[in-house]
Order: sequence, then C-alpha cells, then structure tokens
Amino acid sequence: MIALGGNAIKQPHERGTFEEQMRNVETATVQIAAIARNGYEIAITHGNGPQVGNLAIQQEQGAHMVPEQPLVVLGAMTQGQIGYMMQQKLNNLLADDGKEVATVVTQVIVSRDDPDFQDPTKPVGPYYDEETAKRHGAKNDWIVKQVRPTGEKTWRRVVPSPIPLGIAEAGVIKKLVESGTIVIASGGGGIPVIRNGEGKLEGVDAVIDKDRAGAKLAEEVDANIFLILTDVEHALLNFGSEDETPVEKMTITEAKRYLSEGHFKAGSMGPKVEAAMGFVERGGERAVITSLGKAADALEGVTGTHIVPG
Amino acid sequence: MIALGGNAIKQPHERGTFEEQMRNVETATVQIAAIARNGYEIAITHGNGPQVGNLAIQQEQGAHMVPEQPLVVLGAMTQGQIGYMMQQKLNNLLADDGKEVATVVTQVIVSRDDPDFQDPTKPVGPYYDEETAKRHGAKNDWIVKQVRPTGEKTWRRVVPSPIPLGIAEAGVIKKLVESGTIVIASGGGGIPVIRNGEGKLEGVDAVIDKDRAGAKLAEEVDANIFLILTDVEHALLNFGSEDETPVEKMTITEAKRYLSEGHFKAGSMGPKVEAAMGFVERGGERAVITSLGKAADALEGVTGTHIVPG
Repeated sequence: MIALGGNAIKQPHERGTFEEQMRNVETATVQIAAIARNGYEIAITHGNGPQVGNLAIQQEQGAHMVPEQPLVVLGAMTQGQIGYMMQQKLNNLLADDGKEVATVVTQVIVSRDDPDFQDPTKPVGPYYDEETAKRHGAKNDWIVKQVRPTGEKTWRRVVPSPIPLGIAEAGVIKKLVESGTIVIASGGGGIPVIRNGEGKLEGVDAVIDKDRAGAKLAEEVDANIFLILTDVEHALLNFGSEDETPVEKMTITEAKRYLSEGHFKAGSMGPKVEAAMGFVERGGERAVITSLGKAADALEGVTGTHIVPG
Repeated sequence: MIALGGNAIKQPHERGTFEEQMRNVETATVQIAAIARNGYEIAITHGNGPQVGNLAIQQEQGAHMVPEQPLVVLGAMTQGQIGYMMQQKLNNLLADDGKEVATVVTQVIVSRDDPDFQDPTKPVGPYYDEETAKRHGAKNDWIVKQVRPTGEKTWRRVVPSPIPLGIAEAGVIKKLVESGTIVIASGGGGIPVIRNGEGKLEGVDAVIDKDRAGAKLAEEVDANIFLILTDVEHALLNFGSEDETPVEKMTITEAKRYLSEGHFKAGSMGPKVEAAMGFVERGGERAVITSLGKAADALEGVTGTHIVPG
C-alpha cells in the first residue's frame, strides 16, 4: 500500500494546470512502475487538497449560474480526476509487462460521534474576509473560523477530520490487487460517509487524513507493507537542530517515545508516523516513510525510515 | 450491461442540485437492485452531459482564479461524481444481499483518424454569442459553431464524437463483474483517449456516445444482454403518426430496414437502435430497449423492444 504525498500531483509553487499535474504524476508513476516491476502487488492512495480547493473556488464562482455541489461530491470528482491521470500514466508504463491499472471510487466510513464533528478544525476551500466568511457560512450552513492571525483574508470554512473506521470498497480493492491489478483508491483520504440511523451510507462534508485512510485501507486489504511517500528520505530526530539524526528503523515503542518527546512535527511528520504506527499496531509487517525518489530503494531496505513491531 | 439514460440522473426541468440528482439516482438504482436480485451479473454505464456542462460553466467562471481543466478531465470528474452517487445507493440497497458495488474510472480508446476529428459536431458546454464564442475559441484552441438558428446566444464549442474502438479497463471490469461485483463504468461514454505515436494512451477533448461505448464495453466483457434504458417502453414504428406501433422484437435485418425507412429519430432512438444492433452483430445474444421503470420486466421478456440476431 503506497500513500503518495501531495507534491506527487501538484507542487506548492504551481497553479495546478493540467500539464503541470500530468508532469508530476508522470514522475511519481515512474517510481511506482519500478516497484511493480520488482514484483510487488500494489494499491496506491493520494492526496487531493489543491484539486478540491480549486474545484471549491470554481463552484463558488459559478454559483449564480449552476448549483454548487457539496464537498463530499467534490472529493468524488477529484478521485476521478487524479485517478484518471495516474492510471493512464501507469498503464502506459506497464502495459508491456501485462499489468492492469484501475481507479476505484472509494467511500471511507467515519462515525458521526467522532469528536471532530463537535469542533471541526480542518480548513477547506478559499480564504475570505470575516464578513464574507460569515455570509457564506450562514447561507451554506458552514462553520467558518479565522485560520491565520493577520492578513486581508484570514477566514476559511472548517470541516471535521474524523478517524477512518472502514473502507466501503475494501473487498473489491483487495480482489483486484490480489489478481495483480494496480489499484488507485481512497484518493484524498476517501469520500467520507457515515452510517445513518437505518445503517445506510450517507456522505458527510469532512476531510479524512489520507495517510490515516491509507493505513486503514492497508489493513483491510491485508497489505504487508505500508509505504508513505513524502518530501524527505527519513523521519528525523531533533529536526532542525544541530543533532538532527535520520531514523533508519524504529519499533512501535521507540516511535511512541520519539512522538511524546516532540521529535515529529504536528501537521507534518507527526501524522505520518502515527499512521505508520497504526498500521503496524493493527498487524502490519512494516511501514516505511521515505521520499518519492527513494521509494523502490526503501522497499528493498536500503534507505527510508522503517517502523516495525516491538 | 445496462446503459442508463440521462434522465436517470438529471431530469430536463431540474437545475442539477445534489439533492435532485440523488433522488433520481435512488429511483434508478431501485430498478437495478431488482435486476441484481433476479440473479444477473451487472455492469452499468450512464450519461454525464448535464454534469459536464455544469462543470464547464464553473471552470469558466473561476478561470480568473484557478486554471481550467480540459474537457477530458471534466469527464473523469463526472465519473467520480456520478459513480459515487450510484455506488452509494446500490450499496445501501444490496448490502444485505452480500453484493459489492464499485465504480471503475474508464478510458475509452478512439482513433485520431476518426472522420469526426476533421469535422466535429457534438456541442458541449455553455452557449455564447458569436463574439464571445470566437474569443473563447481563439484563446482555448476550440472549434466553435452556431448550433441554433435564432436567439441571443446561439454559438457553442463543438468536439468530435468518435467511434469507440476499445475499453482500456475492460479486463478489470470483466474480472469484477464475473466475481459478482456490480460495476459502474465508462460513464459519459468514457474518457476519450487515443494511442499516440509511441502507442501510449493520451486524452483527447471529445465526447463518445454513451450507448455506443456501452455496446463496446458489453462486447469486451462478454455480456449476454445489453439493456438500454430510456424514456419509452418500446421503440416505435411510424413514431408520431396514427399508425404508431411499438416494436416488441426485431432481427438485425428488420432493424436495418426500419432504420433506413426513417422510423427511428437521429439524435434520439436512432443511435440507441444502432448501438443495440452493433452489440448483437458483434456476437451479443440480445439487446433490449425499454424505459427505466420496465427494466426488470423487459429482461424477463414481458415488455421492451428486443433486438436479436437474424
């Protein structure tokens, strides 16, 4: 199970044109193709923050002409968008190896009782000034908050970021991966759904952390290895100080201690280490955190930060 | 293989809100669930005209803030959007029967040599006045045409509507359907791709007729029956005249004669009959054209227009 970082699709300095995104996806898929040729069965997940943000702006700008779709639908749209780009590039790289590739639209189950629904903190969509934010909030039944201290537009919509409890399409994804298909799934952390009073799935406007959702999917498809690809080759101890040290291997016990000692930044390496630990604690063989360019090497044990039981 | 008509998702009088679309999808999926319970293995395809039209308007309205994505990507987005709605409703209806449901993002292969690339005629996106149309055309490298004789805004972008030659993900879809999964695929006629000079898949801005693409997918997954669901229970001979007669069954030979006699309207029943014939001519057992509400009955042979070899 491979979780691709956001930069694998859109670099921070880019605007997000189709050509830019295709170029990034090409770079990422070359790495994944190398892993596939090494004989691994592969499922891939990816972020969708910038894509869903752009869609939200477009929805809002067109709202006087056509109805806006809810956030949950924008998430589904980005699964189609990014899935298409990745599966086309992977198909082109691997067709000669007889590999099939497919994107499965994926719903991820969360609980309405998740505490994050009481106090949502994940910002989504455009920045507004206070007045506009409050007007949009009242009109659309959004919670809006000031998310940066200074500037002209400091307010944004905030949504819950609940814990993923299950993957609705896990059975289908597992079947495909086991038959040798490379599956792109749970993009953007998955489409968040709850089970309503009658036990039926129902979309909710929320954003699930993609590494957490990836860890859950890895568990449900019985993956051996959960590979989290980000911008750095290793997780680092004493990050930013003179004693900065790359972690080559850590047990769950060690990872917990490092976390509690504050080595891994919240909102950055912290959640990745936690997702990796979650996978291993629930029975996974090994989680690996490394950079996109080192993905194949890290799987062979040459580099990366390996999180193992113990 | 079931091809759902456009009204199964958005009725002509509706604006296309999420709630409207979910209500329509619910009605459609109740019919499909009944068919599934009758023991059929099912793949489903659907249109995306109104959804892609709305996205195109939103892209344009937001173009001063974020980059517009090409038509091929908007198609991919609608596969995610509509696939999500359908798979959630089907999942809710069929979970107790142990049925799994999944949407597979689908690329449909066309040829750059298709004559339609020389003279595109399929209108897409918003209407413009002549000046705006020509400005957008020049800026985006679009072909624009006057598509209705009178009115304030009579111009639109036109794209090719090439013949589908193959389904890139057919192998995956077949594998899933044969394992009992209900698969939603090739939405909106599929994401149109060509094979470029190096034999690699590459997206093209075009719109493939969804019934034609459905017939091709039906063939490639070895479907026995291709069921086209539309607004009427039967194809009619002498449509609109006093001698109007429903067709209960026709052979390919009869269908060809009726078509040449002009019984089936171009742009409406004509392409559906042609898609049905194509499927049967390429080895399909039977194609059936009927209304959404009669789908299960028609499959049992009680109603609908049946197209059979001969």
